[in-house]
Amino acid sequence: MLTLSTVQFAPIFGDKPPNINRIHDFIDSLQSDIIIFPELCTTGYFFQTNEEAIAAAELFSGETITALQLKSTERNQIYVIGFAELGEDGNAYNSAALIMPDTNLTAVYRKTHLFYKESNCFAAGNTGFFVVEDTKRDVKIGVMICYDWRFPEAARSLALAGADLIVCPSNLVTDVWHIAMPARALENKVYLAVANRIGTETGGGEELVFKGDSAIWGYNGKIMAKSGVDEESVLTVTIDPTQTRNKSFNAFNNIFTDRRPEMYK
Amino acid sequence: MLTLSTVQFAPIFGDKPPNINRIHDFIDSLQSDIIIFPELCTTGYFFQTNEEAIAAAELFSGETITALQLKSTERNQIYVIGFAELGEDGNAYNSAALIMPDTNLTAVYRKTHLFYKESNCFAAGNTGFFVVEDTKRDVKIGVMICYDWRFPEAARSLALAGADLIVCPSNLVTDVWHIAMPARALENKVYLAVANRIGTETGGGEELVFKGDSAIWGYNGKIMAKSGVDEESVLTVTIDPTQTRNKSFNAFNNIFTDRRPEMYK
Repeated sequence: MLTLSTVQFAPIFGDKPPNINRIHDFIDSLQSDIIIFPELCTTGYFFQTNEEAIAAAELFSGETITALQLKSTERNQIYVIGFAELGEDGNAYNSAALIMPDTNLTAVYRKTHLFYKESNCFAAGNTGFFVVEDTKRDVKIGVMICYDWRFPEAARSLALAGADLIVCPSNLVTDVWHIAMPARALENKVYLAVANRIGTETGGGEELVFKGDSAIWGYNGKIMAKSGVDEESVLTVTIDPTQTRNKSFNAFNNIFTDRRPEMYK
Repeated sequence: MLTLSTVQFAPIFGDKPPNINRIHDFIDSLQSDIIIFPELCTTGYFFQTNEEAIAAAELFSGETITALQLKSTERNQIYVIGFAELGEDGNAYNSAALIMPDTNLTAVYRKTHLFYKESNCFAAGNTGFFVVEDTKRDVKIGVMICYDWRFPEAARSLALAGADLIVCPSNLVTDVWHIAMPARALENKVYLAVANRIGTETGGGEELVFKGDSAIWGYNGKIMAKSGVDEESVLTVTIDPTQTRNKSFNAFNNIFTDRRPEMYK
């Protein structure tokens, strides 16, 4: 059994130090095995240009993630944190660091499906959907980010790669994803945790309102915990990742082996 | 604008004439453009052996579908009706006839994903997921059957083939599909109609209780109409199939062209 938390807060656009301090403060206050933070929560969200995103982005091996890695190893906790990543190729990516106590397992996911003006600022992710296995804790974690929710293929790819738990750092500005997330959990028999942000940001003469509503679903598609739409909030639940692995539900049916990919478009 | 109905009733196992009479009676009472009936509603559901299914099955060109085809053409209505099909290959299939007023468009879908003891009785469907276009009514219809709901790939395949409306004749014995169906509608931006049955059947010392709850969802994932769990019921809604076709929702995003199949497992 593991404890899993989502953190919902309002990062400040363009002012990294207080955002990073908030992240450390949340971590210091939580004993959970796994803590999920929102998308782009070190920098804020609403970049307008690629130059602006590149200026704010930092290497996965940079100061912010290195400090969190040290904390992860020291506190023996897993963190998933959305950040603006400067790739080794010079591109800016909308990424999430999956920071594991064992540094060999730490990995970065780059958002596959870019939303709205993100495509003006970030390169489309090139990591694909992958799963990291922590054998000590006996959990396999896959990451998707925000608008990836819209594509059943994203969660499906993570589940087929073996995820027990899908985590989704987000900066969602609608609430319709609450229709899809329980289906993602149910159809793949996985836990699913969304850490969304709150607050507003303006840019290019436009205001974005982030809708909070962070939530965690069990592998049966039922909601386990949910935050409000506009308050800072930490959710914590207990999960048993091993319960997600038997995809059979009667003597005849298994939701993975019953798939017939040759029949799908 | 088209009218769409789902019919929820309790077919009698192994007694075709009254079931077929009920189907004709429902049709005669309805003026809807499209009428959806449950899975295997001419024969009942709970076959135990392949021999039993083959004995009850009839050709797509047989008496039952031919009579309904005449009615479809005469009344200018579209019917989707689950039936036990005897294939030209001698196999029994759990099929749905998509009966169009224009006989050239009439087609049969054979259930891709078999549930529970169905695999003892029926061959797995070999038609794949396809769409029939009625240019006069300006609607494109795709069919899936019951347990196909469990696989996001099924509805996705139909939507990518151009479906405005996915219909799902069913004999569902749980209610968890209500978690997934709104997501299927939303993630594909299509209408989705489930005609489920009610009643109980026994076979092999086991009782199955069919859970009714037939429902129709709009392309925004919101429910438009819902039947009760144990009553005979007809739902009728008005739909505008043309509204499903623009898959863009802002200047940057389109839920189909944003897909990145090369990144999916």
